Amino acid sequence: MEKININELKNYFDKEIEISGFVDNIRNLQWVQFIILRDSTGKVQVTIEKSEEANKEMVEIINTLPIESTVKITGKVVESPKVKLNGMEIIPSKIEVTSNSSLELPFNFKDLANVNLDTRLDYRFIDLRNEKNNFIFKVQSTLVRYMREYLYNNNFTEIHTPKLLGAASESGAEVFEVKYFDRSAYLAQSPQFYKQMAMAAGMDRIFEVAPCFRAENSNTSRHATEFTSFDVEFSYINSFNDVMNLEAEMLTYALSKLKEELGDKIKELFGIDIVVPTLPFPTMPLADVYKELEERYGYKVDESEKTDMTTEAERLSLKLAKEKFNHEFLFITDFPAEKRAFYHMRNKDGVLQGYDLIWRGVEITSGAQREHRYEEICKNAKEKGLDEDVKFYLGFFKYGCPPHGGFAIGVDRLTMLLLDIPSVKETQFLFRGPNRLNP
Amino acid sequence: MEKININELKNYFDKEIEISGFVDNIRNLQWVQFIILRDSTGKVQVTIEKSEEANKEMVEIINTLPIESTVKITGKVVESPKVKLNGMEIIPSKIEVTSNSSLELPFNFKDLANVNLDTRLDYRFIDLRNEKNNFIFKVQSTLVRYMREYLYNNNFTEIHTPKLLGAASESGAEVFEVKYFDRSAYLAQSPQFYKQMAMAAGMDRIFEVAPCFRAENSNTSRHATEFTSFDVEFSYINSFNDVMNLEAEMLTYALSKLKEELGDKIKELFGIDIVVPTLPFPTMPLADVYKELEERYGYKVDESEKTDMTTEAERLSLKLAKEKFNHEFLFITDFPAEKRAFYHMRNKDGVLQGYDLIWRGVEITSGAQREHRYEEICKNAKEKGLDEDVKFYLGFFKYGCPPHGGFAIGVDRLTMLLLDIPSVKETQFLFRGPNRLNP
Repeated sequence: MEKININELKNYFDKEIEISGFVDNIRNLQWVQFIILRDSTGKVQVTIEKSEEANKEMVEIINTLPIESTVKITGKVVESPKVKLNGMEIIPSKIEVTSNSSLELPFNFKDLANVNLDTRLDYRFIDLRNEKNNFIFKVQSTLVRYMREYLYNNNFTEIHTPKLLGAASESGAEVFEVKYFDRSAYLAQSPQFYKQMAMAAGMDRIFEVAPCFRAENSNTSRHATEFTSFDVEFSYINSFNDVMNLEAEMLTYALSKLKEELGDKIKELFGIDIVVPTLPFPTMPLADVYKELEERYGYKVDESEKTDMTTEAERLSLKLAKEKFNHEFLFITDFPAEKRAFYHMRNKDGVLQGYDLIWRGVEITSGAQREHRYEEICKNAKEKGLDEDVKFYLGFFKYGCPPHGGFAIGVDRLTMLLLDIPSVKETQFLFRGPNRLNP
Repeated sequence: MEKININELKNYFDKEIEISGFVDNIRNLQWVQFIILRDSTGKVQVTIEKSEEANKEMVEIINTLPIESTVKITGKVVESPKVKLNGMEIIPSKIEVTSNSSLELPFNFKDLANVNLDTRLDYRFIDLRNEKNNFIFKVQSTLVRYMREYLYNNNFTEIHTPKLLGAASESGAEVFEVKYFDRSAYLAQSPQFYKQMAMAAGMDRIFEVAPCFRAENSNTSRHATEFTSFDVEFSYINSFNDVMNLEAEMLTYALSKLKEELGDKIKELFGIDIVVPTLPFPTMPLADVYKELEERYGYKVDESEKTDMTTEAERLSLKLAKEKFNHEFLFITDFPAEKRAFYHMRNKDGVLQGYDLIWRGVEITSGAQREHRYEEICKNAKEKGLDEDVKFYLGFFKYGCPPHGGFAIGVDRLTMLLLDIPSVKETQFLFRGPNRLNP
């Protein structure tokens, strides 16, 4: 008999079925045993009358069974309005124990308020049994599913670029070194160069969802040494406006599908209303943002800091975006190019042909048109003193390369903002930081 | 104006449009210039009459333009039955050069028969301009898309497990070591332990598509030091038959969708008919395979080799599968468990509760029910002398874990077999082997 998911039981009233799951709880009363069974789709009550002779064996099993053991139960689904949990119960005819839990759990995963985050991460397989924690990954999976779907529908090809590199090309300091037979290799910090190689190869429109590695010895709520990056790159753009438009459309599509599919459950568990954004997203030049932050909220920073968004400016920009545009997203443009990577396109005044996207007061992505002209990209690399290090990359542009651009979104950070979770430590399946490589 | 893809031009006859692409070829005749323009969707002829005064500037541009440069063309789409290429041509009013190619390419990517594979890989961004090579990745992306879609439709969650590990747990010899701040980390050879952790966490049904790393110093057509693995794991199975059934259904779904979407083009470029398999896939115990290979084809091997499939046995099994079952796939079961990893379930006679799947004479996947009972998995690990090394993993099973199983498919190898390509070096976007880390 095939296992029925707990959230499908309502279609099986008065039928004999088989369900399986974790024993979430047991109440052993004088005349009756109540078992709460849990799978990833929900919970259901199983009721055993102790007086029934036929139940003797089941009663004995339940008498000594530790909660969090797993069982397979055959029984009948009965509508019972008096049962608070879904108004139904299972009257079992057979219980088979499929695994035994220990009597004592490392902590009570149903109430994590006073459990140290490090302990939770040490026992992540217990921590994830918490309904909210488990659901985070259903949300993340669904969001990424529909981001991909938007791209597939728009003729994008998914590629898988190598994470092992022959040279620490992008920025030597924050790269992990790998012992590679008798030489060294380096872990990719981003697929940037290879996304662009795909453009030079005439692949037109590509994306990748893959790990990136950063040897940053910093411990913030937003950083990890390994994270999942959603990277997009496409050719034949007229300017970085095409990149902003595509990103905005993709996010709107995915958030709308997510709300449709999981909006109610997100509201129930996290108290959050998914807001499907309107198109186009509002856009402001960097200088205007600082001007308005000062005018509206008295936020002042030194001119020297105004070449990029400060963390506080990001935070305040949510207020600005809401008040001025009634929007949660804000594109910021017109950054000075000098502080950005050499591969971005700049105009003759040194203005970056790219943008940052702020969502709910945190930067979620950087995007840009890239420099695709051989002479220009060589000049830019040389200016940064990188021309020898990135020689292989410069070669990509020697034999024709269409104008192109793209962006990257950190999947863990996106999930963190979506569900208003304090740290990526909780939105990564298994967090990796300078002091954490386990489990 | 938005760029029109070349394969959509037939919807724009007599309209003014904008197209962009690589200059695939130029024929510069006395009275006329013919340009063949190429994007990832196809090719089209652009015709410039030299005598027209208005064309003077365009004629000059084309006179000196190296092929493989990229251009943006504004013009009218005209139906021209006399033009062999799609029966249409573009009459341009404006040509803008968006990038210049060098005069000489490293090799002629349109005819790779005599180009050394290493040279091709050195200049992979040129190699991939070859129509067939470019299309390989469209096929791979489409196949993976529909493998995922099958799983989403069956309630699976996609996860992203870490590739940086604190211990070289699965088998120390073939693992890459990473310098991780003041200690060592190791690159994941597979997500096996973490897929199973998700089961212990009650995630029920998960999958992952991600890189795996193997420090194997071997150079065969099937091996790479980094490859993309499609990993599936799910709970509440009754036996490994449930795993085989799910894998067969997933592959059938994906191949059927692939055929529908790209079958004609695959036939045209690779001469291959996608065969949508019938369900269920045929299954044979290992001993029976050897028996029939001997009876039918006189293939004899020493008893000592019959604990696994030899490469030759794999190859011959395609013939067997076709003759006996009229099928390209063959599940092989009843392997002795002793040579397999300790985490697979075995029955009391030491028979592996798992399988290999052979497609077109090559193993594409191993799958199994896993040992989920704490006492048993500890015993199995101890027998292999691994109990200390995998202590963190054994802990996953201490607090209840549902019966579960899963499988893994190498995406590059699957693509290689699908399109009958001799080596994974050509089905990886950028191949990585002991002697290749570039570009």
